[in-house]
Amino acid sequence: MLSPELLRDLRELLPNDRLYSDPTDCYAYAYDNSRKIFPPDAVAFPITADEVQAITLLCNKYKTPLTPRGRGTGTAGGCLPEHGGIELSLERMLQIITIDPANRVIVAEPGVLNQSVQDAAHPHGFFWPPDPSSAMYCSIGGNIATSAGGPHAVKYGTTRDHVLGLKAVTGSGKVIKTGCYTSKGVVGYDLTRLLIGSEGTLAIITEATLKLTALPQATGGVTAYFYDTASCATAIIAIMALPQIPSAVEFLDKGSLNLIRGRFPDMLPPDADAMLMIEVDGSLRDITETTTSVISACQNNGLLNAEQTGDTATLWKTRKALSPLLRDIAPKKINEDIVVPVNSLPDFLKELAQLCDNYQITNVNFGHAGNGNIHVNLLIDPDDEDESRRAYQCLDNIFDLVIQFNGTLSGEHGIGREKRSYITKEIDSATLNLMKDIKKIFDPNNILNPGKLFP
Amino acid sequence: MLSPELLRDLRELLPNDRLYSDPTDCYAYAYDNSRKIFPPDAVAFPITADEVQAITLLCNKYKTPLTPRGRGTGTAGGCLPEHGGIELSLERMLQIITIDPANRVIVAEPGVLNQSVQDAAHPHGFFWPPDPSSAMYCSIGGNIATSAGGPHAVKYGTTRDHVLGLKAVTGSGKVIKTGCYTSKGVVGYDLTRLLIGSEGTLAIITEATLKLTALPQATGGVTAYFYDTASCATAIIAIMALPQIPSAVEFLDKGSLNLIRGRFPDMLPPDADAMLMIEVDGSLRDITETTTSVISACQNNGLLNAEQTGDTATLWKTRKALSPLLRDIAPKKINEDIVVPVNSLPDFLKELAQLCDNYQITNVNFGHAGNGNIHVNLLIDPDDEDESRRAYQCLDNIFDLVIQFNGTLSGEHGIGREKRSYITKEIDSATLNLMKDIKKIFDPNNILNPGKLFP
Repeated sequence: MLSPELLRDLRELLPNDRLYSDPTDCYAYAYDNSRKIFPPDAVAFPITADEVQAITLLCNKYKTPLTPRGRGTGTAGGCLPEHGGIELSLERMLQIITIDPANRVIVAEPGVLNQSVQDAAHPHGFFWPPDPSSAMYCSIGGNIATSAGGPHAVKYGTTRDHVLGLKAVTGSGKVIKTGCYTSKGVVGYDLTRLLIGSEGTLAIITEATLKLTALPQATGGVTAYFYDTASCATAIIAIMALPQIPSAVEFLDKGSLNLIRGRFPDMLPPDADAMLMIEVDGSLRDITETTTSVISACQNNGLLNAEQTGDTATLWKTRKALSPLLRDIAPKKINEDIVVPVNSLPDFLKELAQLCDNYQITNVNFGHAGNGNIHVNLLIDPDDEDESRRAYQCLDNIFDLVIQFNGTLSGEHGIGREKRSYITKEIDSATLNLMKDIKKIFDPNNILNPGKLFP
Repeated sequence: MLSPELLRDLRELLPNDRLYSDPTDCYAYAYDNSRKIFPPDAVAFPITADEVQAITLLCNKYKTPLTPRGRGTGTAGGCLPEHGGIELSLERMLQIITIDPANRVIVAEPGVLNQSVQDAAHPHGFFWPPDPSSAMYCSIGGNIATSAGGPHAVKYGTTRDHVLGLKAVTGSGKVIKTGCYTSKGVVGYDLTRLLIGSEGTLAIITEATLKLTALPQATGGVTAYFYDTASCATAIIAIMALPQIPSAVEFLDKGSLNLIRGRFPDMLPPDADAMLMIEVDGSLRDITETTTSVISACQNNGLLNAEQTGDTATLWKTRKALSPLLRDIAPKKINEDIVVPVNSLPDFLKELAQLCDNYQITNVNFGHAGNGNIHVNLLIDPDDEDESRRAYQCLDNIFDLVIQFNGTLSGEHGIGREKRSYITKEIDSATLNLMKDIKKIFDPNNILNPGKLFP
């Protein structure tokens, strides 16, 4: 329960329409895409960095949890107010402060949607590369908190590669400024990247200086179908060995293809058990050349068909067909985003299939194969307790397998609350303790998103 | 003076040829390219991470400064044992542990030369983009400690963009492992980039997982001469507004050109007061197209001549001619590496000239103009006290000017000891205190490179 004094102080700070405390109002801020539900005691909507600081100082004064929230599209539960307290919704900090095409920079507040950044950059011939599937409605604050990626990360990297500097309020309420405005800078410790991916546990981002990239002249693509997963994985390695990195290398496995066939019986070749969608970008001539190389890299005994797609919409058609089907099964799946070295994909996918067989768990795997980043979805009937138990045992084994292959537990979703009990599989205790000590410096009272990221 | 007990313990740990304590032997480790001299009391040459840890623990036990050193090519005095103690030379940790072209990764020990990484990567069609001018003889450990850049940073970024993970020993002697082996990963805080650029004040790097980049198919270039600096700066902006970023945009000012003319009277057009060397890379067709665009971007009233260069050697001829001349005047210059937003270059260079005029200081400016990263060299006669005083006043004003233009004090050299008294011009006290607190976590006894980076 919230202290009445804190609520009183918050009411002095914020007008009524920017402070919710009615449980009905608060409920909309109780969940994210992890589908877990933790209602906050109140939701605050700051519109300035000063307000963010004042709220943080109050939460420190009253030792009340404060959980920053972008647009709630995360899948790891990072923005859930697990211990109640104040949910800090940054969604009304919506100002694009600077559009500076000459220096390839946009400065924006955390609530600005990823799509709004793209819209602001596009007329000047630029884009901001991070492209999570929620780009239309997720915020850059959330992108920064998780170092969000997406299909184009294989060529362009993730959020941490595209932020020059930040303004933020630490867990203890101190206003800090990190990084710089220029494309180079090495003055002091790199706090910018320490905050990127810290999932709202260290500081609340109030302003971000984003580095823009020139739009490619054109895009093209290749669709390739394979008789089996192993041949597809072999093709992924061959594609990633090309000097020209494609702008996306997306993989759909048999489970994904079957899900699509259930709704669209004629969309896919009946013999295909795995599929790649490869996007290339650059000049028209680059595209022609790279497309030829990609099709050639796809050639192996298991290739059913690889051909150039007429346009990007055609290329992404299958992936887009999969999305709503995945949403339909969403409450019944465990959704992970593990990464293994690209060269290990054939062995990893084989052993993954074996594990799921052993535990009798249906699975659907797809994702950003060019990075070795696979979304492993274990489908479960929530009413079947035994299946649930088997699925979580299977998941535990999958994570062990990922670590054996020198991979990582999360490529873009983060740890949040969903994966924190597994983090010690990847991070040794000395390193984890150092991270905890850093958390204490930024947030000595453990106010900010308490309990997240750490086991 | 070193405690005899520490020296005894070190002798038990290391054979004689890996522990110097004779002042004559130690003297070679007393300086770097900042030209300041601080002899260490002893120099230790570990060859394993265990030895690095053992030495660090001993220095903690005896509260003795420990200063990590790559190959001493830094210009900011970052590796100088200012307070005596042990100089930790990593130059014998020379193993390339893994060459994994399929995953575009090289794993190497800190003493491996930048050039050795290039040599190992090249046969597989890759390179490692950081390219300081000392690439032939500087180590990757030093590159990582400073987030080294170079001419190609304009297209490829600096060291922090090309390291996936690290192993390190913290100042308190804890062995940590940061980052991952894959091209994507967001598990825990980004300690990799916290260490990159921390100038040996937080931890000693014992192993680095480097991300490789495919070699360009070909390179080409443009040499452009201008009647005046302002026109040249305008051309830089136009070049950097092109969608295709050149692989280098190097600038030489009037002072640089005159220095070259002193030695090579016929190398340069007599009317030129500023010069650009623009390198482009990609496919042969890209090069043809981009070269045309670059030459077109150079067109303005102040252009004397812009033309394609036959080969890379011709392109870099002038820059290479400048290097030994700069070395000749080295003891008599203050060498900085400030950065301003590219769009501010015309105004900045104008005001810089005005400042140097006011203080009657001769200056030579050149550098990585595509990043707005200018090496400002103030030439002084070390025997002229008044000139020295004026030069340092001028420098103080230059740094203020850089900050006014939303720039940064260092693009690639770092703070070390040379610039620490200026760091508060750029970093506010709350942010700086947070950095100091982070230092305390990694290095509670302030053993590791004490006094560096902070004012």
